Amino acid sequence: MKKFMNSVGTLLHESLAGFAHCHRDIVALDSDFRFVRRVQKKPGKVALISGGGSGHEPLHAGFVGYGMLDAACPGQVFTSPTPDQIVAAAESVDAGAGVLLIVKNYAGDVMNFSLAAEMLPRAQTVLIDDDVAVERSTDGIGRRGVAGTMVVEKVLGAAAERGDSLAALKELGTRVNSATRSMGVALTSCSVPAAGKPTFDLGDDEMEMGVGIHGEPGRRRVSPVMSANAIAAEMVSAIIEDLHPRPGQEALLLVNGFGGTPSLELYLMYDAARRQLEQHGLRIARSLTGSYVTSLDMAGCSVTATLLDDEISTLWDAPVHTAAMRLGM
Amino acid sequence: MKKFMNSVGTLLHESLAGFAHCHRDIVALDSDFRFVRRVQKKPGKVALISGGGSGHEPLHAGFVGYGMLDAACPGQVFTSPTPDQIVAAAESVDAGAGVLLIVKNYAGDVMNFSLAAEMLPRAQTVLIDDDVAVERSTDGIGRRGVAGTMVVEKVLGAAAERGDSLAALKELGTRVNSATRSMGVALTSCSVPAAGKPTFDLGDDEMEMGVGIHGEPGRRRVSPVMSANAIAAEMVSAIIEDLHPRPGQEALLLVNGFGGTPSLELYLMYDAARRQLEQHGLRIARSLTGSYVTSLDMAGCSVTATLLDDEISTLWDAPVHTAAMRLGM
Repeated sequence: MKKFMNSVGTLLHESLAGFAHCHRDIVALDSDFRFVRRVQKKPGKVALISGGGSGHEPLHAGFVGYGMLDAACPGQVFTSPTPDQIVAAAESVDAGAGVLLIVKNYAGDVMNFSLAAEMLPRAQTVLIDDDVAVERSTDGIGRRGVAGTMVVEKVLGAAAERGDSLAALKELGTRVNSATRSMGVALTSCSVPAAGKPTFDLGDDEMEMGVGIHGEPGRRRVSPVMSANAIAAEMVSAIIEDLHPRPGQEALLLVNGFGGTPSLELYLMYDAARRQLEQHGLRIARSLTGSYVTSLDMAGCSVTATLLDDEISTLWDAPVHTAAMRLGM
Repeated sequence: MKKFMNSVGTLLHESLAGFAHCHRDIVALDSDFRFVRRVQKKPGKVALISGGGSGHEPLHAGFVGYGMLDAACPGQVFTSPTPDQIVAAAESVDAGAGVLLIVKNYAGDVMNFSLAAEMLPRAQTVLIDDDVAVERSTDGIGRRGVAGTMVVEKVLGAAAERGDSLAALKELGTRVNSATRSMGVALTSCSVPAAGKPTFDLGDDEMEMGVGIHGEPGRRRVSPVMSANAIAAEMVSAIIEDLHPRPGQEALLLVNGFGGTPSLELYLMYDAARRQLEQHGLRIARSLTGSYVTSLDMAGCSVTATLLDDEISTLWDAPVHTAAMRLGM
């Protein structure tokens, strides 16, 4: 395992310090490294908070800023943030209209965000579980939350800016999550710095179809590696079987890299996934390609489709100003 | 070598097709895949054209759009575009004020862009050679052009939008290139699809200090891998020795990933490089971290510093709307 770092113990804080300095016009880092928050607070707006284990950057800190999150709580690598991190973030960014917690469906995240929610006066939760690869995650609480999280965060962020209430945002978030499905594939494992070795073994001619964003097992191990078209066909079929779109319905297509895959390959996968989705009768009306919800240095990618309606499209197009996503300002 | 592809022969065109569809509001792809151009032409503006071998995405096509390039010519992977590609691009985007060719200093690029320039009525060239690692590239024509290319493209793009003449742009580009220095380091090799294997051998405990963006040898092979701080110190020292900044001078710091390195590590390297540059008396007034000038799937990064003055800072801050860089619109 080769990584740019000084020591395993300081890696996360050094990276956060670099992130906060690089984007100091947008974010501020809590002095105890508990959260990253927006520089500017907007009175009367519902505060959106997300977080989770580190190693998925730019998720979540890269989405803090106007039109998306108010704060993000980074746990240690692939480890949930603690309840006190979440409470501290909420106390820092609550602007009088309550706090919405956007939580990926993993046992640790669900537990710690729930504990935090109990300690907060006005908190609601939206749970993200967009991964169609497996019905039951290795931690036993159902479908995993993966790249669709950023779609929910973008749409809710725009809705919060326009003044939606806490209850309305919870309902909208639940609706966007239900309209969103993802599936991923790994060509290599990731390596957690503290472990010092690959999370799982994958042969030189193997791939893991349906992999999770922490390297969890997917649907099947495949050898040799399939063509891009065949990979896209399998991922899109799994998504479509679950989404039940209407013929001709508009969709957002997100092709997301896992950290070790360059954009040359991601755009090729975008092309393959787009053709597959169109063959299934969808119309790709919004698109995004890039490494947004990563798994450290894993080579691989995921395909996410969100069924659009006028409201979701409008909110997706609304201005956003974060480190990792910028539109219209 | 595992990559998302259908065949080596179709990889580039499929990726370009995906890119063009994903960003169809910004770019259009020539029907013969010779160039990517801006959707909107601005009469009377000098047209900026760059290009080079593919495999460095988002450079250059990702920088086509308002405030940056008018067209980009993608060669095959790590292979210069042909003169006819460049001429076709120029004929497509020339808006009556001439064409400026932004060329990285490699033998093939220099030759083919020169041949194209001879065939064009009003063309000037800016040559980029920001890599301080080696004085003489393996192809024998001097310093290599690397990540600093995107800084020059951003600054020139803004100057072209405000109406600068061809002569003024050539002078400005030459000045920004002279104020810009870079150095890179590789933790792994890249793998060219047509070769099917790593470009160079690098042991599990080795790194290549001063690597080129095609995997060219750098200054030295190092084992074991150095700490992030030590890597940043060596790269920044090499840059500073060459730049001769004034004490307290403002600089732009770009920490660029080579394609296989996740942003968690890039921001850590940003933090390390920033501290080093500040110790050398520079003030980091502008910052950028991300994988902008890549080397296929290489794990590694480069540090680029550009000395700023009021004009360069203003042009850096000007609005830009491209696939890979967006600011203020």
